[in-house]
Parts: sequence; C-alpha cells; structure tokens
Amino acid sequence: MKMLSKSLSAFALAGVITSASAATVVNQSISEAEVIGAQKAWCQALIDISSTYAKDGQPAAKALAEKVIDSAYGYQMGAVLFKPTLTVAPQTFRTTREGALAYFVGGNSDYPQDKGFALKGWTKCEPQNAGVFIAGDSATSMGNVMMTNKDGQVTTVDKTWTYVKDDAGNLRIVVHHSSLPYTGK
Amino acid sequence: MKMLSKSLSAFALAGVITSASAATVVNQSISEAEVIGAQKAWCQALIDISSTYAKDGQPAAKALAEKVIDSAYGYQMGAVLFKPTLTVAPQTFRTTREGALAYFVGGNSDYPQDKGFALKGWTKCEPQNAGVFIAGDSATSMGNVMMTNKDGQVTTVDKTWTYVKDDAGNLRIVVHHSSLPYTGK
Amino acid sequence: MKMLSKSLSAFALAGVITSASAATVVNQSISEAEVIGAQKAWCQALIDISSTYAKDGQPAAKALAEKVIDSAYGYQMGAVLFKPTLTVAPQTFRTTREGALAYFVGGNSDYPQDKGFALKGWTKCEPQNAGVFIAGDSATSMGNVMMTNKDGQVTTVDKTWTYVKDDAGNLRIVVHHSSLPYTGK
Amino acid sequence: MKMLSKSLSAFALAGVITSASAATVVNQSISEAEVIGAQKAWCQALIDISSTYAKDGQPAAKALAEKVIDSAYGYQMGAVLFKPTLTVAPQTFRTTREGALAYFVGGNSDYPQDKGFALKGWTKCEPQNAGVFIAGDSATSMGNVMMTNKDGQVTTVDKTWTYVKDDAGNLRIVVHHSSLPYTGK
Repeated sequence: MKMLSKSLSAFALAGVITSASAATVVNQSISEAEVIGAQKAWCQALIDISSTYAKDGQPAAKALAEKVIDSAYGYQMGAVLFKPTLTVAPQTFRTTREGALAYFVGGNSDYPQDKGFALKGWTKCEPQNAGVFIAGDSATSMGNVMMTNKDGQVTTVDKTWTYVKDDAGNLRIVVHHSSLPYTGK
Repeated sequence: MKMLSKSLSAFALAGVITSASAATVVNQSISEAEVIGAQKAWCQALIDISSTYAKDGQPAAKALAEKVIDSAYGYQMGAVLFKPTLTVAPQTFRTTREGALAYFVGGNSDYPQDKGFALKGWTKCEPQNAGVFIAGDSATSMGNVMMTNKDGQVTTVDKTWTYVKDDAGNLRIVVHHSSLPYTGK
Repeated sequence: MKMLSKSLSAFALAGVITSASAATVVNQSISEAEVIGAQKAWCQALIDISSTYAKDGQPAAKALAEKVIDSAYGYQMGAVLFKPTLTVAPQTFRTTREGALAYFVGGNSDYPQDKGFALKGWTKCEPQNAGVFIAGDSATSMGNVMMTNKDGQVTTVDKTWTYVKDDAGNLRIVVHHSSLPYTGK
Repeated sequence: MKMLSKSLSAFALAGVITSASAATVVNQSISEAEVIGAQKAWCQALIDISSTYAKDGQPAAKALAEKVIDSAYGYQMGAVLFKPTLTVAPQTFRTTREGALAYFVGGNSDYPQDKGFALKGWTKCEPQNAGVFIAGDSATSMGNVMMTNKDGQVTTVDKTWTYVKDDAGNLRIVVHHSSLPYTGK
C-alpha cells in the first residue's frame, strides 16, 4: 500500500519545493496530471485483477482487489459514494468497502447479484476525459472509459470520479459514478 | 451579477455569526442542510419548467430554464461536468451552458437528439440520498431521484451532484451525473 | 475594480484550458505565481495610496484605499482577520472594512489612534517569503515585507497573508497578520 | 503514524453520521468547536511542557514537546509557516520541525537565541478570539492569547493559527503567527 511505505523524506521530495525566491512551498492542490495518473492506475488495477484471477483464482484476485480498494479509494474516511456500472436496487450504491469488494470480485452471499466485475478478463482499459474540474482540494473527472476483454469486445461506460488527497499525498476516489451509455430507447 | 446585488447585511445574516465568545465567525463550509435545499430547488425547478411549458409554451420554458441554469449551475466558472440521463454519443457530455439548455428544453438544431427533458410534464420530483460527502468547500450527494409525470408514471434515476459555494453563498452544481438504473440484462 | 470588469470570456481565458486530450479543464487551485502576484499588487497599492496622498490629499487617498480594500480583501465575505502592524488594544483587530480603511488612511474619529499607515510616503515595498502553504482553495504566505519611505528609511515587518479565490478568479486576502520584528529585549 | 492506529469505528464515531433520511454522511469540514478545542489543547500542552520541565528537567520537556509538535502541527506535510513570538532574524521563521522544537524547549546550538519559550513556568493559558474564518477545509483563528507564569505575570500575544484536518480527522496547525502587541511607540 503506497501510503504506508512513504517516508517523510518521500513527502519532502513529492510535495515540497523551493521556489526561485528560496521560499519553502507546500502545495496540496490536485493537478490534472495527478488525475490522469490516478485514472491510469485504476485501469491498470482492473487489468491486474483480471489477470490474477485467470492465473491464480478468485482468492488471489480478491486479495489484490482489497489492496487496490484500500489504496485507491477513500473508504477509511467513512464512506465512498460508489455507483458501479452493473449494480441493481436495492444494492445499487456501494458506500461501504465490503460492497465495493463484492462488486469487483463477487463471492459474497450478501451481494448475490455480484458476479465480479473485475474478473471479466479485461485486457485493456482506456480513460477519455470530457472534462476535469479541479476545485483545489478535490478534483473530478468525467468522461468515457473503454474496457476491452480477452475476446476483443469493448465496453464503454460513462464515468465520474472525484478524488481528494490523503496525508501521504496520494489521490483517493471518494465519488465514483459509472453507467452504461443511454441507448436512445 | 448576483454577488453585487447582495448587500453586506444579507451576507451577515446568511453566513456570519457571532459566537458565544463574541468572536466574529465566517463559515464557508457546505452543510448537509444546504445540499438538501439545493436538491429540492432543482426538483422544484424541473416541475416549474414543465408547468411553464404546458401553460406558456417552449419559449417561456426556455427562458425559465436559462434562469435556472444560470443560478443553480456553475457554467460561469468555465464548465460543468454534466452527463444527463438521456444523452447519446457524441453529445453525451454537456460541459457548456448551451448543451445543458438544449438538453432541458430542446429546440436547438445543434443538438438534434434533444427532445427537452424538462418538458416531459413532470409533476413530482423526489431525491433520496444514499450518501453525502462533504469535503469542506465542495459537497457531493449520490442517490436516486424519483420523477413522476402527469400520467403518474415514475422514472427513477441514479444521480450524483457535486456543489461548490459561490461568492454569494449559494450552492452551484459543478458535477452532475445522471443515469438510468442498470436493468440486469 | 477588477472583479467587475471581467466578462465571461475573460473567465474562459483565465481559468479554463483545453488539455492535450481535448478535455475541458477548470482549475480553481491557487498557484504560487498568483500568490506572488497578489503580494506585488498589495505593495503597489500601498505605494499608490502614498503618492496619491502626496499629490491629491487625504480624500483622494481614501477613495483609492476603498477601491483597494474592496478588490484585494474579502470583507464582503463577512469579515477579514486583520491584525495590522501598528494597532493597539482594544482596537488591535480590524475584522471590518471600516476598521481596515481607518488603519490605512486615518481620518476616522472612531479610531483615534490611526494616523494612516498608507500615507507615510512609501516609495518601495518588497515581499520576501519564508514559505508558502497552498491548501488547494486557500493559500498562505509568510515572510518579511520591506517598505521604504521617501527618506530612504526601511521598515521591515513579519507578514502573514491568507488568500482565497473569488468567483472572478481573483485572490482576496482573508487573513492578514503583520507585526514588527521582536527586538530581543 | 496516527492514521493507522485509528480504527474504522473511531472514524465512524468521529466523522460519519446517518442523517434523518438514512443517507450516510461524511463531513470533513472544520467546525468552530474543533478550532476552540485545538486552541485549548495547545494551551494545555504549553502548561504541561512547563510543569514537566519543572519536575523532570529539559530532556523530559523536550520529549513531550516533540510529541506535541508531531500531533498538533503539520510539519509532516512538508513545512509549517511558524513565526513564534520571540524569534529574531535570521531565524525568525521556523518552517521546520527542528526550528519549532528549538523554540519551545531550547538546547539546540544551531538556534543560539532560543531559551525555550515553553519552559517559562506557564501555569495558565487562555485564548480569546477576535475572529474565526472557516474556508471549509481550512480554518483560521485570530485573537489574543493570555499566558500567566508562576509569578502571576501575564503575557498577552496577538495570535493567528490556521488549521487543516489530517486523515484521522484531527486539526493540525499549518500557519502560526504570534507577536507581541505593538506598544504605540
């Protein structure tokens, strides 16, 4: 988990710079580059969970998914506003870590509809932002994410992610709304 | 410009209090009550545009929709991340005021798919939050909104709204992701 | 007053960019460069009030000081936490616009100790930051400001300024603590 | 690392509530009560360091001061903008943890002027706010702090503190400007 392995000197390297005027500058703002980086990390994690599942089975995929959730989402802040792509009422919204984990890797009898979204053999995942709104200490991206499975089929979703920074300077997802495109009928 | 029309005393009434210790307190945080209020205002605006359309026609509804967009959304900040319920590619995302207006009241040949979502005879609109995440200077709600039309049919959507406060202390929507529930097939 | 003359297109030019990926980006974070710019503007305003006083008298200096306060400070948000360099109890803290104006240009019998700090013939003003802390939507600078009067005498103060951004994208001072250096005895 | 020692249930008790509508609410805003609490904690820590010094000597006082700095200040974010009451150039500003520690308990040959402010036999410490400005995710207080030593002598300082919340929900001082009142001559 990235946050835990960061030393104080890593802090200094990552977020504190000395400006031309020799003033120490601490900048906790979120940049567009950090948003792009967090999106790529999310996509890579999806692919990694899929390949871990294929090679090592569901328990290994679940263990990885837990690591991903604990490092990339903000459940330890109390809750995440998460509306996954394929959930149905009355379990549409996954504000708890357990609900997120069930969605990604299934295998939880409390969430009987969950087949494990991250187990679907994803081999490619590509975000394409329509817009990014940086409010200073939070940042939201909206756009499409195109995910390709091992058969080459592409699933496109409409995706909104809101990030805040944790104490270690890492972005964490606190809002995640994903939906299939409206088909016009 | 709204900020200018508000007097300092209105400011004082709204956002500045004197604490027990006689210190002047300015509090720009967003409260859950303000989020609930903004949601109710959005719902009421939807109903009002529908009834204005029924009584006075599209131009009157459009004029009202413009007022609503200009007071309840944050397009003057540069863009809003808006994914309406019923839009289709390549016009899924409506980051401009013009795109939002076309979605709500139609009548814009640049957006030929738009029939005018707010013109559909809505008579009731009810938000039901799954969660609210207040990051301090922004706040996001996620949950369902149930909208009833004049025939009594209810449309339920999954809805995410993120708000920031403007200089006058009013919440403005800067992120709006709405989608039809996944049907499970 | 800068805020009033900004058109919506100015908004677009100032704060909204299109990234490499063609996503619209709204960035409301405060940058170090904006902090430096606001400090220089404060210094220039001090010099301008002094020279206006010398040329055109106190009423003209007062009119200019009002413009400066209304554009560079955040009194319209309800209050500013202002501890000027030379105020004494029980009027040490100037949380109101009136108190700030009295400090800068004097001439207010409710503030009998105020001689008008900005009228002291300042010809040069130079900030030197020890540090800048950007929390995202607020930013604070701390350091020295060296002010030179027409006789070449330099006054150095320890200075803290906290800024927030208004709707027009301009920084406004909401905290200002200024003090003479401790002399060690 | 504080964040790790807090359990999720502690999080839940502190910052997450269930609203009337059964929505989960995460609120990361800073309240005035939290600011008052942090001020009282700072005052108590000052008294505790003084009494520890009297009873157990400088090394014990230093150990306590380190604990206080590490829990109440934000040095681990990269820097704190700290202008203590009694420092002199060129060591006026203490943006590093080491500089803060030297100021509070002395005994550091790199800071030869530092006698140890927290060792001065403080028995009482009382904040009196002129104003509090809550920007959402940061909050600043400005006012006086009256400190009484064991001989009953009272020292009054003009004090500005800015706080942000860490991942565990605790306020941390990121700006601290303290100065002796201007004496009018």
